[in-house]
Amino acid sequence: MSLIQPRTLKGFRDYLPEVMIPRERMMQTAREVFRSFGFAPIDTPVLEHLEILTGKGSDETDRQIYRFQDNGGRDVGMRFDLTVPLARFAAQHIGTLGKPFKRYHIAPVWRGENPQAGRYREFVQCDFDTIATESVLADIEAVAVINSLLESLGFDRFTISLNNRTILTGLLEGLGLSDSTVPVLRSLDKLTKIGREKTIAEMVSAAGVTEDQAESVLRLADCNGTPEEIFAMLPEVTGGNETAAAGIDRLQEIYQGAVASGVPARRIKLDVSIARGLDYYTGVIFETTLDDLPEIGSVCSGGRYDNLAGLYTKQHLPGIGASLGLDRLLAAMEKLELLPKISAPAPIFIAYFDADHRDDYLRLAANLRSAGLGVEVYPEPKKLGAQLKYADQKGFTLALIAGGNEWDASTVQVKTLASKETSDVAYIHDDAKELVAFVTNALAAK
Amino acid sequence: MSLIQPRTLKGFRDYLPEVMIPRERMMQTAREVFRSFGFAPIDTPVLEHLEILTGKGSDETDRQIYRFQDNGGRDVGMRFDLTVPLARFAAQHIGTLGKPFKRYHIAPVWRGENPQAGRYREFVQCDFDTIATESVLADIEAVAVINSLLESLGFDRFTISLNNRTILTGLLEGLGLSDSTVPVLRSLDKLTKIGREKTIAEMVSAAGVTEDQAESVLRLADCNGTPEEIFAMLPEVTGGNETAAAGIDRLQEIYQGAVASGVPARRIKLDVSIARGLDYYTGVIFETTLDDLPEIGSVCSGGRYDNLAGLYTKQHLPGIGASLGLDRLLAAMEKLELLPKISAPAPIFIAYFDADHRDDYLRLAANLRSAGLGVEVYPEPKKLGAQLKYADQKGFTLALIAGGNEWDASTVQVKTLASKETSDVAYIHDDAKELVAFVTNALAAK
Repeated sequence: MSLIQPRTLKGFRDYLPEVMIPRERMMQTAREVFRSFGFAPIDTPVLEHLEILTGKGSDETDRQIYRFQDNGGRDVGMRFDLTVPLARFAAQHIGTLGKPFKRYHIAPVWRGENPQAGRYREFVQCDFDTIATESVLADIEAVAVINSLLESLGFDRFTISLNNRTILTGLLEGLGLSDSTVPVLRSLDKLTKIGREKTIAEMVSAAGVTEDQAESVLRLADCNGTPEEIFAMLPEVTGGNETAAAGIDRLQEIYQGAVASGVPARRIKLDVSIARGLDYYTGVIFETTLDDLPEIGSVCSGGRYDNLAGLYTKQHLPGIGASLGLDRLLAAMEKLELLPKISAPAPIFIAYFDADHRDDYLRLAANLRSAGLGVEVYPEPKKLGAQLKYADQKGFTLALIAGGNEWDASTVQVKTLASKETSDVAYIHDDAKELVAFVTNALAAK
Repeated sequence: MSLIQPRTLKGFRDYLPEVMIPRERMMQTAREVFRSFGFAPIDTPVLEHLEILTGKGSDETDRQIYRFQDNGGRDVGMRFDLTVPLARFAAQHIGTLGKPFKRYHIAPVWRGENPQAGRYREFVQCDFDTIATESVLADIEAVAVINSLLESLGFDRFTISLNNRTILTGLLEGLGLSDSTVPVLRSLDKLTKIGREKTIAEMVSAAGVTEDQAESVLRLADCNGTPEEIFAMLPEVTGGNETAAAGIDRLQEIYQGAVASGVPARRIKLDVSIARGLDYYTGVIFETTLDDLPEIGSVCSGGRYDNLAGLYTKQHLPGIGASLGLDRLLAAMEKLELLPKISAPAPIFIAYFDADHRDDYLRLAANLRSAGLGVEVYPEPKKLGAQLKYADQKGFTLALIAGGNEWDASTVQVKTLASKETSDVAYIHDDAKELVAFVTNALAAK
């Protein structure tokens, strides 16, 4: 019989222990942060009725949906994000859930796009949202959650860029350009790429605005400096428009509330030109970049929306949320070799080389586990050298070695694998207290 | 515009917080148990080349695979278990992984079967395997892992049934029935359903054995009693066949090793008639039932196999593993109302009813979180009554209440929601020590 070639699909990948161990740790950290703010977990099916999924993002998103007919002849699709399933879920269950409703959802999504470096057709999204409230407290809290997430994941140097879409909306309203919002924003989005003059030219030709109007829009994008400086400039730049003024007040509340909540001011940047998604977001928006890895783009983005589930329910459900690009963050850390080369999920290795004492090794392991320590026993009574090589390669911290002599003397040899130091520690029958204390100290000292 | 009906596909379900909170806790418990034995996490894509998936289980399994052509014209399928992906993964990566290799994998799988009560077309599997070793230590360890899993999940009364397929293989060998193994086992599997006489009749007609031979096979199934009694009976029942004798020895080693590893003897039952999967398992096999819920069937099953990945590689990869039916266990607990009605992921609720002090509430929450406590702040300054009703419904343990008076007096009122008892506790500016101590005690006393 000929063999089937073992391979993954193009754009998909396996996670080996070395990468999966930190990936699981990241997901667990995210769960703990979300829960500590009162966000509750939910889960939804990977497959949805196709009509639930299509027409929610762009045409491009629609093309990227993995879709098919199931055995029952239903048109189904695999979810491409966690927002559309949340909208369907909220419309269906809000009566049971109660309002406001805070949820997180950590799960894979699928997009049949052409995979680029570090991007895959299957990736984990990690979303949190507070729905059915327009309160500014929820906006402030979202900034605090993003800060806690990145901090708990081990990052110190990152920047959360904040804006309020309402400021731009007000400015355009004041200029009489409300109907040209979409083409104006589309041009504005290119500012950093094509420069000031070309952006103005494009705004004039594509959005049909005057050069003066385009200049006024760009003056907003020019508002740089400290938050205090920007808040001082904004009233004049937005020409006293009331909508803009309300937006400025709200942005200031969010900024001050976030700082009061313990988000270091150095991590918050006001960027009144970012727009993110032309139709969906209506209030505050945020992007988060790593100061040492700006090239990977935003690792946590989101904002306030006016109505989550208008396609499925007449209930008006405003909310705010963001999505952490967990796999993007992981791929970047992997590429930069920031992940330790450890594929052992437990820190302690027990060599097993005296087959007559098999049950003693097992009892030793069970005793250490009872004390909350992670322990792997090598499964076969091979030569000690081969076992220690295995332990070294996997990245264990300590090896416990006991042969006939040690069992007779009621001791165990504890070896620190990195330094090769060894100590003989007492281990009498089933009294593991002294050994547990020694091993716990040795692990802490690592 | 007409609304799209928000609904899930037939056989699929949403997980609301009340069920998702214990479900996440179960998965986290399983991860901790696996890691404490040195099993490492892996992940594989949900979609695989169809040729990887088909022809691995039964014809029925093949029919149940969700399959389609992707945009690139490839035939793809959604995984229906975690064993086939492990086989593909091992064949592809064993050179990098090293041998032996111990992994766990907790992930959803899909089967387009007709859904029955408590069973869905999408469900989470929770597998662990030790591959590339034939060592009995790995077999013993698998029993210890199952025991730790169920114990850590909160179960005390459960039974792990053990058998070694080799005993039956040896018995049939001794009877000259090696070529009739499959039909004999198929008949034997019906014993509890159709009774002794009909089983013999079927064995005679379907497997072409004599009545005496059928009687000999059934004598094995009749071996009941304590492990010691069964081990005493087996040599005679298997007629001194050598293969069977080796199988009996190994089963005895596993039983004794498991007890030495700390598995209570009362939880282990020898059941030399269970066969589980006609072709795949070749050595020890196990099933686990809850003593108080035997009707849901086995919640953790598995066994030793001779060659995991023969379809994808010439490397011989024997191993042992088992699968915990996490969603089946959860559905049973849900049905039996064993899950507490709590949809709050954090134990502490802060009422927010004095808008002037918004930042003080946020700071209070941040202080408690810094001390490792989970805290939700109600997002809107509504009336206290409505907020406390929300807190009660969600199942919070404590509510923290502070209005103008409390802020002036530098105190916070702590209310135990179940008993309605309240205490005023000092909370001076940013010094949360006294409050943290009080709240920590109150949560522990709950």
